[in-house]
Amino acid sequence: MSLFKYYYDLMSQPARAMYIILKVSGTPFESCPVALRKGEHFTKDYETNVNRFKKVPCIVDKDGFKLSESVAILRYLDKDISKQLYPDDKQLRGRVDEYLEWQHNNTRMGCSMYFVKKYLQPVVLGIEVDPKEVKMCKQLMEQTLDLIENVWLNNQKFLCGNTLTAADIFAACEIEQVAVTKYNATENRPKLKAWLKNVKESTNPHYDEAHKFVHKLAARQSKL
Amino acid sequence: MSLFKYYYDLMSQPARAMYIILKVSGTPFESCPVALRKGEHFTKDYETNVNRFKKVPCIVDKDGFKLSESVAILRYLDKDISKQLYPDDKQLRGRVDEYLEWQHNNTRMGCSMYFVKKYLQPVVLGIEVDPKEVKMCKQLMEQTLDLIENVWLNNQKFLCGNTLTAADIFAACEIEQVAVTKYNATENRPKLKAWLKNVKESTNPHYDEAHKFVHKLAARQSKL
Repeated sequence: MSLFKYYYDLMSQPARAMYIILKVSGTPFESCPVALRKGEHFTKDYETNVNRFKKVPCIVDKDGFKLSESVAILRYLDKDISKQLYPDDKQLRGRVDEYLEWQHNNTRMGCSMYFVKKYLQPVVLGIEVDPKEVKMCKQLMEQTLDLIENVWLNNQKFLCGNTLTAADIFAACEIEQVAVTKYNATENRPKLKAWLKNVKESTNPHYDEAHKFVHKLAARQSKL
Repeated sequence: MSLFKYYYDLMSQPARAMYIILKVSGTPFESCPVALRKGEHFTKDYETNVNRFKKVPCIVDKDGFKLSESVAILRYLDKDISKQLYPDDKQLRGRVDEYLEWQHNNTRMGCSMYFVKKYLQPVVLGIEVDPKEVKMCKQLMEQTLDLIENVWLNNQKFLCGNTLTAADIFAACEIEQVAVTKYNATENRPKLKAWLKNVKESTNPHYDEAHKFVHKLAARQSKL
């Protein structure tokens, strides 16, 4: 059976989220890992034959159709995704979509920029970072985490209601990653803490498998 | 006939895009303008009864269902939107979705941050802006405009093929707005220039109506 190809690196938050969603849905795919740390996404071959924007995640469908952007991939694969994770019900799907759009300049921007400025640039790449920038990123991240605690998780177990959806998986993958910076996102955020545990339990063993390297890095950093 | 309520300010790029899409589609809606400059989105009533995130655009459906995020609104209203603008064809829709996700940290981030740092903060709000920040925002905007010129518009008339879609309208609304900063996005970008003209012509008179205030501001600034 011919399958679509899924290109990902488990160190990319949205690539990891889509990986977990595919695994939880039991969707078969041809696994195509891309090592970002080796710059495998910058080759001419990758740009021409996989993703013209030189990023992960992306897919190449059986007929050669190429698509990037995790959320666009989720929608494109709609029929292959668990209905619980991406519901057909118009209003529930609307709520999941609302989170998936909201995340870009909130969870994603806040958490990933803090990760970049606090860990990736100074620790991995040896780039000097302006402390003012780190502070600004931390503020944005904390605003987002507070909105998740006080607005999204207000009176419900998951972001879009009382059942797990794709929105929760995308959010959890962003929030897990900041542990590498030694920041504890769940401290003083009891709803977020319970929610993160619920997301993990609802998606395991795939969640832990996908986060293996992130958790290893976080453990290593916590000892420093 | 009871209609959904559409809350918008034509000075918001995504609100303007959805406004044009609704007008081009001939979708009836109850018009609910929100004056951002007067802080109408910050009232307790707005937060409780309209949008818990205190932003535009958003809708309140006939049964009271509230939804924010322009792209989530577009999908929620799917059946009421012109099929040309948001096609049913799986791959073409995938391409439109790809742009709508891509835009957040590209066109939207690039153009709107430059607008904020070059015009809104220093000229309207009297906030001092670090020239380094303005320079960084300009770089990001120009990278995005170059990707639109060289990648998205490579060999095709519109962003997702040879017909106008919602992606073009969202993109044009971001790019129009930077004219207020006196930056000419179409200079040395012939494909972008032709495309912007095509988007305008394909959506008028709604395009010009929705851009009336933006164009007035741009004209006023160009005389300074």
